[in-house]
Amino acid sequence: MIIIGLDPSLTCTGWGIVAKSGNRLSHIANGQVRTDAKASLPERLVVLDRELSDVIARWQPTDSAVEEVFVNKNPQSTLKLGQARGVCLLALARAGLPISEYATRLVKKAVVGTGGAEKAQVQAMVKVLLPGVVLSGADAADALAVAIAHAHLGTSRQSGHLPG
Amino acid sequence: MIIIGLDPSLTCTGWGIVAKSGNRLSHIANGQVRTDAKASLPERLVVLDRELSDVIARWQPTDSAVEEVFVNKNPQSTLKLGQARGVCLLALARAGLPISEYATRLVKKAVVGTGGAEKAQVQAMVKVLLPGVVLSGADAADALAVAIAHAHLGTSRQSGHLPG
Repeated sequence: MIIIGLDPSLTCTGWGIVAKSGNRLSHIANGQVRTDAKASLPERLVVLDRELSDVIARWQPTDSAVEEVFVNKNPQSTLKLGQARGVCLLALARAGLPISEYATRLVKKAVVGTGGAEKAQVQAMVKVLLPGVVLSGADAADALAVAIAHAHLGTSRQSGHLPG
Repeated sequence: MIIIGLDPSLTCTGWGIVAKSGNRLSHIANGQVRTDAKASLPERLVVLDRELSDVIARWQPTDSAVEEVFVNKNPQSTLKLGQARGVCLLALARAGLPISEYATRLVKKAVVGTGGAEKAQVQAMVKVLLPGVVLSGADAADALAVAIAHAHLGTSRQSGHLPG
């Protein structure tokens, strides 16, 4: 099973790909899609869609996991995040990938052992679990953590499954 | 100029297409994309993307206008709307269409003459301005109103412009 994990945002979407073979996990790739804050919203969404679709075409994941959204108290931020997240989910679903969603606390619990773990602890555990990984940044680390959580927690929490 | 107007939502996205030739407006088509509330979110976004892309391919608009979002006090609703809206904007931008956004009040003012107009007044004016139109529903009427507003207000408020 090859899992792509995503941490969606309009400014910088993290992605991370891991392979699971039996109980063994290994790192395949990770990166971040940044969009230009000076570009229009539709232009930024096009960049996000195109770059994610390229990543999916290149690494051919068979399964996907996405961080569930922390609903911000600022409605404009929630709307922005929603628009980027819709494009991320669409890119995964168009590629025919099953999609699981995990709350941040659950990801932290699966990776570090406690839902209240700090970002730095999550990054340290990602490096322990994927020896030799070079992280593209904090958002890529979060995306790898989501992929690892999915590898551990399996298919029981699958929230979206597309035929074919 | 052939304008597609959109009123995005996850449950039912309205679309409406009008032609503007000099000062003359005419109705081309209108409809609504409904998604199944029992399907997963990614499946619903795929349906929305596919049906909107079909509409764009069929009617070949040259310009587009989208209702600006009323940011709901319920963050979960804002997130849902954002996800659908992101997919709508992506479909327009991928087709290379310039995109303008209009606040609901501005649409009402352009169509009815007052920003506080009732829904029924907007629908009545849409029927007056596009003689013979048969409305697919309230969301399609709202989408036609956005297209009409763009025809009247022109390019000065364009918020997103993609090259090519």
